[in-house]
Amino acid sequence: MNNNKSELELAHLHEQLRSESVAGNGLINRRHLLGLGLAGAGSLVAGNVLAADASGLVIPAWSKTPGRELSGYGSPSRFAAGVTRLAPQPNAISPGTGASRTPLHLLQGTLTPNSLHFERHHAGIPDIDPAQHRLVLHGMVRQPLAFSYEDLLAYPQVSRTYFLECSGNSGANSGPTAADNSAGGIHGLLSCAEWTGVRLSTLLEEAGVTPEASWITCTGADAASLGRSVPLNKAMEDVIIALYQNGEPIRPEQGYPMRLFVPGWEGNVSVKWLTQIKVTDGPANFRDETSRYTELLPDGRALQFTYSMGVKSVITSPSGQMTLTRRGLHEVTGLAWSGSGAIRRVEISADGGRTWADAHIEENQQALTLTRFRLPWLWEGGEAILQSRATDTAGNVQPARAAWVAMYSPANRYHYNGIQSWAVSAQGEVKNVYA
Amino acid sequence: MNNNKSELELAHLHEQLRSESVAGNGLINRRHLLGLGLAGAGSLVAGNVLAADASGLVIPAWSKTPGRELSGYGSPSRFAAGVTRLAPQPNAISPGTGASRTPLHLLQGTLTPNSLHFERHHAGIPDIDPAQHRLVLHGMVRQPLAFSYEDLLAYPQVSRTYFLECSGNSGANSGPTAADNSAGGIHGLLSCAEWTGVRLSTLLEEAGVTPEASWITCTGADAASLGRSVPLNKAMEDVIIALYQNGEPIRPEQGYPMRLFVPGWEGNVSVKWLTQIKVTDGPANFRDETSRYTELLPDGRALQFTYSMGVKSVITSPSGQMTLTRRGLHEVTGLAWSGSGAIRRVEISADGGRTWADAHIEENQQALTLTRFRLPWLWEGGEAILQSRATDTAGNVQPARAAWVAMYSPANRYHYNGIQSWAVSAQGEVKNVYA
Repeated sequence: MNNNKSELELAHLHEQLRSESVAGNGLINRRHLLGLGLAGAGSLVAGNVLAADASGLVIPAWSKTPGRELSGYGSPSRFAAGVTRLAPQPNAISPGTGASRTPLHLLQGTLTPNSLHFERHHAGIPDIDPAQHRLVLHGMVRQPLAFSYEDLLAYPQVSRTYFLECSGNSGANSGPTAADNSAGGIHGLLSCAEWTGVRLSTLLEEAGVTPEASWITCTGADAASLGRSVPLNKAMEDVIIALYQNGEPIRPEQGYPMRLFVPGWEGNVSVKWLTQIKVTDGPANFRDETSRYTELLPDGRALQFTYSMGVKSVITSPSGQMTLTRRGLHEVTGLAWSGSGAIRRVEISADGGRTWADAHIEENQQALTLTRFRLPWLWEGGEAILQSRATDTAGNVQPARAAWVAMYSPANRYHYNGIQSWAVSAQGEVKNVYA
Repeated sequence: MNNNKSELELAHLHEQLRSESVAGNGLINRRHLLGLGLAGAGSLVAGNVLAADASGLVIPAWSKTPGRELSGYGSPSRFAAGVTRLAPQPNAISPGTGASRTPLHLLQGTLTPNSLHFERHHAGIPDIDPAQHRLVLHGMVRQPLAFSYEDLLAYPQVSRTYFLECSGNSGANSGPTAADNSAGGIHGLLSCAEWTGVRLSTLLEEAGVTPEASWITCTGADAASLGRSVPLNKAMEDVIIALYQNGEPIRPEQGYPMRLFVPGWEGNVSVKWLTQIKVTDGPANFRDETSRYTELLPDGRALQFTYSMGVKSVITSPSGQMTLTRRGLHEVTGLAWSGSGAIRRVEISADGGRTWADAHIEENQQALTLTRFRLPWLWEGGEAILQSRATDTAGNVQPARAAWVAMYSPANRYHYNGIQSWAVSAQGEVKNVYA
């Protein structure tokens, strides 16, 4: 290959791209880019012209001998071994307690592979034998029921693609100084999968909820007995007992053999290793909905049962801790989501919010899933501050960080959904900043 | 739990269900089932009534001590270790050559986890270092180009969910006798994932296709140098260079670091480990599009370049080699797909095709993806033959097996899309039959 691609040719291309500007500091119209008809006029990436003598091309060793055999359960390439969850050191005081994050900045598309779905445990991952597991449904019902795993498999099931976000996701950005971290490191308590299971309403109808009931309280089989309360109307609306995740049985980290899945709500409510649902006439006020998972306000009061996750977005590439190694065209891309519906619009700014352009998103976005957004960006070596701002179908607009901070006590780290700012230096270093 | 659930109560429930019949031999209206309001009247599954003294419930060992730690890259429960691809013994004559199948009968939903995506290799899986890999685009273009993996990451990308099906999938059912096998064993050269990558049209436009060009020929970096030809209009329409699969870098078995992905067409055309695209004015007539991957007709001629996969469906549960262990309600479920559009309708028969009922499918099915269909079935211990029949948005209807067989030479095993029949015996044994 010829790595001495003509500077003049690239300059000509960049001139063309500049004429397709949609907002300040290099944001380019994607539609025009895809149809630019660059035919022969230049290439988008420097150094990719094939030399006339095809110099630099060799037949690699792996093309000369048969490769390895087929397998029962595959795994990633050893060259992609760095694509892992961001997992902490083992917790010496409270074994198994903590969170691992999805490496959003290393992924693409909208789905999270099961092996990379974020984790948040309060007493580690129980090793449950499904043949011994029972789900008990009792309380204000005409007929208490107990379901084995096999029992549930006989019921009608539904499949839905939903994001799951921890209430504490992005909480680092609520602190007084901007932590140096990546998109996954800050926002990676967020994942998306196709969940399949039995509608909770099917089981509740079978048990026969009595008229005075208005809540359910749900408990996991982990050693923390994690419990959460859910209003009955939500339980009847779209909650499922999830048995499968992206097609296969759900993973131990996600509640194998079964978890509650409460679409659009803070992840903690989707109780894993689900073993008990009690129909009640009020919330249980479990530890994880009183001492934690509430939002402290400036006046010292706290909001409780603020379940739905706010409208939010994050640029995953470029991401903090990346370095842009060449000037020219890049794709700015990221994820947007909302607990109140589908994503209707994502805007991107490259100048810290002075000017904005609509990012490209696919049509017909589904509610309560992740939306991938993209926009071409011509980076010519100047400083920039990249931001994204999401709007959902309910009309909610993602707030600026300052607006979010003003709503809460400085101690609150839950339900953070302020705009993320990535500063790009003239050297191409990308850093988390408050802007 | 009380396992002596009243036979009378179940009989009453089954009476109710029978009144919701939508076709012969036990097929039930799903909509009515979900809203039956069975409140207290009985449970769908025998033996799940909770005894008043909660007898049978114990606190399991895993609820008493903290579970295991978080991890970087997760894996399934040891209790789900049987959920693997159906992989053959190593091929002693041609190492790495063969196919492993997705265990469709053990999965749910519409997506295939990457570890379970089917494999079909012609010389094993090369262990490619992406830093050394090159994709060359040459032939009838104004400017030949060579792309590194890093180069491609800078280009605009798209994400789409597509099924992939091997041309030889289900070929066993073209044979003279019905093999005793499972849904995955017969039809498991079929998977579905969200693929993300660069549109091939973007690269072709950059290179500048010359007016006389009408095809591209594509070659992989495996030791078989597997090659296939694609008409230029399809290449420009929706073909991508796939870099990510369900969010993470594509797996070695799927072509890491990059593969051609040709939506809706036989899997063999989606060349893995893609290293060369040559723009031409005709097909290359590679080995895998002459001696193989053609369909032999009754008169001895063969069809070549029959790329698009036919409209098709298969019931994945119940599946051959399963045994129904209890009478009563079951969910009949399976997958439908078409290379010519989206799935518009799936019908199910429980009496070998005498009567049919519409299965439930979600609204707004996307083109070229897998569609999950479901219908409740009350099995009361009689014999049954379960079948499914798909119709796509282009109006194509899945043919009966006999109609398919009549179109080809008995030697042809490609592009089989006849209706699958599962016979259920009075003992509940499920078997592949021709009916």
